[in-house]
Amino acid sequence: MTAKPKSDRSRLRRSHERGAYDHEAFYKVLDAGVLCHVGYVIDGLPYVTPTFYWRDGEHVYWHGSSASRMLRASTGNQVCFNVALLDGFVLARSGFHSSVNYRSVTLFGEAEIVSDIAEKRAQLDLFIEQLWPGRNDEIRSISDQELKATTVLSMRIDEGSAKVRTGPPIDDEEDYDLPVWAGVVPVRQIADAPIPDPQLPPGTEIPEHIKSFIAVRYPT
Amino acid sequence: MTAKPKSDRSRLRRSHERGAYDHEAFYKVLDAGVLCHVGYVIDGLPYVTPTFYWRDGEHVYWHGSSASRMLRASTGNQVCFNVALLDGFVLARSGFHSSVNYRSVTLFGEAEIVSDIAEKRAQLDLFIEQLWPGRNDEIRSISDQELKATTVLSMRIDEGSAKVRTGPPIDDEEDYDLPVWAGVVPVRQIADAPIPDPQLPPGTEIPEHIKSFIAVRYPT
Repeated sequence: MTAKPKSDRSRLRRSHERGAYDHEAFYKVLDAGVLCHVGYVIDGLPYVTPTFYWRDGEHVYWHGSSASRMLRASTGNQVCFNVALLDGFVLARSGFHSSVNYRSVTLFGEAEIVSDIAEKRAQLDLFIEQLWPGRNDEIRSISDQELKATTVLSMRIDEGSAKVRTGPPIDDEEDYDLPVWAGVVPVRQIADAPIPDPQLPPGTEIPEHIKSFIAVRYPT
Repeated sequence: MTAKPKSDRSRLRRSHERGAYDHEAFYKVLDAGVLCHVGYVIDGLPYVTPTFYWRDGEHVYWHGSSASRMLRASTGNQVCFNVALLDGFVLARSGFHSSVNYRSVTLFGEAEIVSDIAEKRAQLDLFIEQLWPGRNDEIRSISDQELKATTVLSMRIDEGSAKVRTGPPIDDEEDYDLPVWAGVVPVRQIADAPIPDPQLPPGTEIPEHIKSFIAVRYPT
């Protein structure tokens, strides 16, 4: 095996880990995930809460109980919003150069409460619609009481960064001759067969929107 | 289908979402994950960084470049550490009761730098050893320069909480008769076939520690 000149390797390294600051790069990662981590500050101390999110145009949204301390602490305040998707373990010929392939986006901004009741209802419907198109037509719609008990926060997608690493390990020149396996162990999330609620009448068909959700979000 | 009395359902709900504050509950979630989110404060503003972690007894560890702003900002300061594992989408008969099955642990504490050089080396070795038992014997060991360029942080597992939700949706009594599919779409992470580094001599065997990593961490 002939080791490549250093300049080649450096170019390669740059092409494997990439930062981006444009909205299209943010959207690409955001639209592939469902779970985010929101960081906020209470009395000078850091808090991180995992929660689900959705995107509508230039805003990300998340929601929870109106009694949630996280949502109350975030409202009108600066938050840090991260989505991280693990794509693989990168096994190099040294521990130091071992890494992971991933897609990550971090956004900074002020979280705002969606106070308009019609907008709040529309956003909660959109959350479900984006995951399971058509499901809103089947399930019971949200009651006024439930709407009151739910807080929806939004944040304008503005300041932030996206980071992506792909490809094989990048080892030191002198390590390429070591007799050690190197490469990538790709990982991804899959969905298993839906488990019907035991209280469902036997023989209830799995609707198309569930099958399509699995096919789109968790392709085999 | 006979709707169960409310008291039963409430008991059921409690049994599906559970909070725990003991170390054994923390360890169970921590030992199943690899990716954490660390929250910290710089100049009063919240930051969240996704990173890899490992556990050694009563401490969690994470590492990065010594130049990392995240690591420098966390050192000696309060951090919030979260691991969240998504296990499934819980589709109820209303959007309001739709949920997710998950395992999550949040820890609060002060991040401390591992300054003892031997301990730092031992912890970085442990990180690799926990993922791929035996790999340390094959790869090039960390150089003094690399050790210097790497910062390892530790945090004592003390204050925190673990939350776990399992099982089917819990709907309102009157919604159980709706003609809508309800249940759980389980999700999990899997590993695909390892991709050898293109620079590896053709025919290099995939070592046992990689196969065992996949079998243990990503069982089929």
